[in-house]
Amino acid sequence: MKTNTNNKIKSYGQGPYNTKGMALYSTDGHFKPIQFQRRALGPKDVAIKLEYCGICHSDIHHGLGHWKKEIFPLIPGHELAGVVVAIGANVNKFKIGSRVGIGCLVNSCRHCNQCLEGFEQYCEKGPILTYGSTDRDGSITQGGYSTLNVVDEDFVINIPDLIDLAYAGPMMCAGITVYSPLRKWNVGPGKKVGIVGLGGLGHMGVKLASAMGAEVTVLTTSKDKINDAKQFGAKHVIINENGINLSAHRRSLDFILDTVPYQHDLDRLISLLKMDSTLCLVGVGKVTESNQLNPFSLVSSRSSFAGSLIGGIKETQELVDFCASHKIKPEITKITTKEIDDAWDKVINKKARYRFVIEIN
Amino acid sequence: MKTNTNNKIKSYGQGPYNTKGMALYSTDGHFKPIQFQRRALGPKDVAIKLEYCGICHSDIHHGLGHWKKEIFPLIPGHELAGVVVAIGANVNKFKIGSRVGIGCLVNSCRHCNQCLEGFEQYCEKGPILTYGSTDRDGSITQGGYSTLNVVDEDFVINIPDLIDLAYAGPMMCAGITVYSPLRKWNVGPGKKVGIVGLGGLGHMGVKLASAMGAEVTVLTTSKDKINDAKQFGAKHVIINENGINLSAHRRSLDFILDTVPYQHDLDRLISLLKMDSTLCLVGVGKVTESNQLNPFSLVSSRSSFAGSLIGGIKETQELVDFCASHKIKPEITKITTKEIDDAWDKVINKKARYRFVIEIN
Repeated sequence: MKTNTNNKIKSYGQGPYNTKGMALYSTDGHFKPIQFQRRALGPKDVAIKLEYCGICHSDIHHGLGHWKKEIFPLIPGHELAGVVVAIGANVNKFKIGSRVGIGCLVNSCRHCNQCLEGFEQYCEKGPILTYGSTDRDGSITQGGYSTLNVVDEDFVINIPDLIDLAYAGPMMCAGITVYSPLRKWNVGPGKKVGIVGLGGLGHMGVKLASAMGAEVTVLTTSKDKINDAKQFGAKHVIINENGINLSAHRRSLDFILDTVPYQHDLDRLISLLKMDSTLCLVGVGKVTESNQLNPFSLVSSRSSFAGSLIGGIKETQELVDFCASHKIKPEITKITTKEIDDAWDKVINKKARYRFVIEIN
Repeated sequence: MKTNTNNKIKSYGQGPYNTKGMALYSTDGHFKPIQFQRRALGPKDVAIKLEYCGICHSDIHHGLGHWKKEIFPLIPGHELAGVVVAIGANVNKFKIGSRVGIGCLVNSCRHCNQCLEGFEQYCEKGPILTYGSTDRDGSITQGGYSTLNVVDEDFVINIPDLIDLAYAGPMMCAGITVYSPLRKWNVGPGKKVGIVGLGGLGHMGVKLASAMGAEVTVLTTSKDKINDAKQFGAKHVIINENGINLSAHRRSLDFILDTVPYQHDLDRLISLLKMDSTLCLVGVGKVTESNQLNPFSLVSSRSSFAGSLIGGIKETQELVDFCASHKIKPEITKITTKEIDDAWDKVINKKARYRFVIEIN
């Protein structure tokens, strides 16, 4: 572990903080170095020296402008892990040296029903995302492909000592995105669960659902991932290529978690659900790409097609603690800041096994 | 009421029974008279002299071949009401003179989990529909646009004396199709419910959801139905034409029941759901018509898009009894067997107010 002892960290002072990062200047997917300032600490802010940041498929969707018109330069990254180097006057959850993480959220309205219930991701006024969002003070948030961040402590996750910081980042997006729906739909012993897509999200889904006691079936288009799937805890693997007949598995699953972030055939997946069961989508592709869904698929077994978005802060902490107690960690490949362009290409071409993590330097 | 006293009915004997009906001979939507035989009674069969049969939009989908390749001649009709005129040796639920109804189902496997739990409509081997299905004995079922039917008593509904037989038929398809999901998704006091489409199904949905204590909002494209909607129990009516902005109603509803049987914009409806709520589709159009659904719609509030298919026999009886105790009945227009062609045209052109019922003669 890179940072195991915390008491030697010196305070960085109250800021503002000169920060280095890797930024996109257009939707060309090409990163260049950037220098910028993070804000001075507010009373509830912590400054975090970043050590690692995971590369999420949604970084790519954002960076290439698939979801909305982005403001450039854009510094992506919402799987941040590091060490607290300064705290505001009223911070009480963390101290200098605390090992911490930041996921996809850095703020929300704090007042709506969803915020009050710990579902900040569904905030009625819209959650403030870790990068590319307009924060409540009007500034544009910038993400974790950078050396430091300043965030309200309410949106900072404690990383237990049992978790190496290099593995912590992907828990807070890939991990929570699958953990939250697995909990919501009561995955556990006696349940047969399908995980569609074995990528950054999917492989965490397999590990988590197995740890929860479910019998996991992976549906993947990649034949070379069969052994990995089983090693992660899957009992069955179905090669889910178009044209392959799935009727032998009809109505066999209690829940399906679909992590595939582009248009694909949902009807064949829904046919695998038992009566009254749910297919939950967590991967979303281009905002202009609707999925086709034949109503007969749902009507014939009273099944549901649902969506789920990351998770709230309280639940993210719960997930990180669950990973610590069940010794679950993502499969990662560390890269340098110079290798981000190449890593993005590999993610797009399904070559990631299973998460690239930038070592911040 | 046409048939109030039952004890003057004479037994028709054990059959087979010469029966008259109105049949389609192709997908041209044109009916011609037909004479045919209904089977002799099995030990659990009842013979029912039909007095009324409702015209359902799905009769039209079947008749025009929208759902599958039909076998002609085809006698539609799955909203049957009449009087028992003969019973098999082991019938114990009914006697000669019993006022009864038949909905969409006349048989199922009886052994799968769904059948055993009273969800025969989701039978794993496929339910046997009242017309156009191949029954377990290999015969093709024929529906209620006819003078008599023979059905296993397990699939026959008791019609309480409080319900005029002319109004009973539409309860057993239009009624149960909306009642079942309203119950499944716990519609009741304190719940805000949207009903999309004010036709045969929708108008029963408004009456039933109101009787269950919910606050009902109707979404309709027909401005001339506003007063009707309110009379049926709706508190609010939204004209749901494409282009009309629904953002004032965003995240306001706990449940939406969508009765529209053709392709339409689902994303704008899902935007009206509160977090963790469901849009349930019960209207299905051509089998080749998929609906478009943008995954962002569901993901942004963890909402679900579900389907529901009619209801089981036990639940259908519960619905008929609920209608009796709450004095709920469909809005009907009686027609003769000669007027079926014309009535179909009116249903297709949204001119039904709200259910045509054939008076069998």
